[in-house]
Amino acid sequence: MSNVYQRLSEQGLVLPPELVPPPGVVFPFEAVRVVGHRVYISGHGPQNPDGSLYAYRGKVGREVTEQQAYEAARLTALSILGSLHRELGDLNRIVAWNRVFGMVNAAPGFNRMPAVINGFSDVILSAFGPYIGAHSRSAVGLAELPFDIAVEVEAEVEIH
Amino acid sequence: MSNVYQRLSEQGLVLPPELVPPPGVVFPFEAVRVVGHRVYISGHGPQNPDGSLYAYRGKVGREVTEQQAYEAARLTALSILGSLHRELGDLNRIVAWNRVFGMVNAAPGFNRMPAVINGFSDVILSAFGPYIGAHSRSAVGLAELPFDIAVEVEAEVEIH
Amino acid sequence: MSNVYQRLSEQGLVLPPELVPPPGVVFPFEAVRVVGHRVYISGHGPQNPDGSLYAYRGKVGREVTEQQAYEAARLTALSILGSLHRELGDLNRIVAWNRVFGMVNAAPGFNRMPAVINGFSDVILSAFGPYIGAHSRSAVGLAELPFDIAVEVEAEVEIH
Repeated sequence: MSNVYQRLSEQGLVLPPELVPPPGVVFPFEAVRVVGHRVYISGHGPQNPDGSLYAYRGKVGREVTEQQAYEAARLTALSILGSLHRELGDLNRIVAWNRVFGMVNAAPGFNRMPAVINGFSDVILSAFGPYIGAHSRSAVGLAELPFDIAVEVEAEVEIH
Repeated sequence: MSNVYQRLSEQGLVLPPELVPPPGVVFPFEAVRVVGHRVYISGHGPQNPDGSLYAYRGKVGREVTEQQAYEAARLTALSILGSLHRELGDLNRIVAWNRVFGMVNAAPGFNRMPAVINGFSDVILSAFGPYIGAHSRSAVGLAELPFDIAVEVEAEVEIH
Repeated sequence: MSNVYQRLSEQGLVLPPELVPPPGVVFPFEAVRVVGHRVYISGHGPQNPDGSLYAYRGKVGREVTEQQAYEAARLTALSILGSLHRELGDLNRIVAWNRVFGMVNAAPGFNRMPAVINGFSDVILSAFGPYIGAHSRSAVGLAELPFDIAVEVEAEVEIH
């Protein structure tokens, strides 16, 4: 069964509403930019169910545990799927996940970024299956992320 | 009016000459790489009017203020437009800004990268308008940037 | 002569076997993702000849010298070429190097990332020549890299 929404629903996963930026913050860019068959996805972070940015903020390995960061990466996947749904109208239009660039707000010495970003990959693979959901990936430690979010992911997908 | 050069001129914006690398530095790559309709833009930093790298160097939030970094992001946009002009011959060939990856040389604790990279987005949107100039974007904090530049941007655009 | 394998052989360069992940590590993504004519390459690091991750680990400018990091970047290029060979069957299918995103595990104050990532560019240019091997590039300093590898590169190439 290739219906993405059914797979998300079976796992109890819910897409959050559009991001509510912090007060005074202007985002003069698109959450999702479609150019031909290619879809460029801006850096997203984990959202609360009300659309605001996630409660787990801070450095992973210090204020945020690896397990919390894994959950933050799962929420980041849902944030991106929400943006894709609003822009594309139907997530089933996606024929391939091309690229996932996973950024972790790493405390000095924390080097388990792949285990964190697996939260993102796990959601994508469970929702899209091993063929469409397969993706290239990097998982690296950034010095700082906006609003001290624990995880940020930029990505690219292909549509027909 | 869709002429990019006219829009730049109306704002008094001038494209810098080709980058003059610091002494002894070899750059064995292209500033701009065209492959079919897609144009990959190497990481660029802010240039002085003589082509050298920008005077504002250092960590944003420490040696460089947020306002100076915003200006550095504007200069980085002009640096990229200069490279695109030299490679493409005509900036009006650009039909879409696909992706902007904004990197800020962030001092520990500085997390206002989006406000800095808005300097880049503002130049692109004012020069190309809201349709062609729309772009996906990330704005994140790097540990170190080459030559201690305050801002670096990598990007991708589409041409016909 | 455009045969990539001959050029590698003439320089005594050998492609490593598939990456052996550290114990307990799961990589739920593709080393190389082919979508149409475009090939997305996951972040790779330097490999030992037995396939494991490179011996030079740590911060460049502290535990790892610039010269060692340059060598790590060369090994990273070979790691990527190994993955491309296994996925594409023939490296001569590559018609263009589109994008190279070079990430250096930078010690505080180390800002010579371009000199490090030149190790990657030098291998690609010597194997593919100045036309196919030309690429856009960024070379920046990350706060942390997985497993404390000194260098990681993400890239994109074009095939026919």
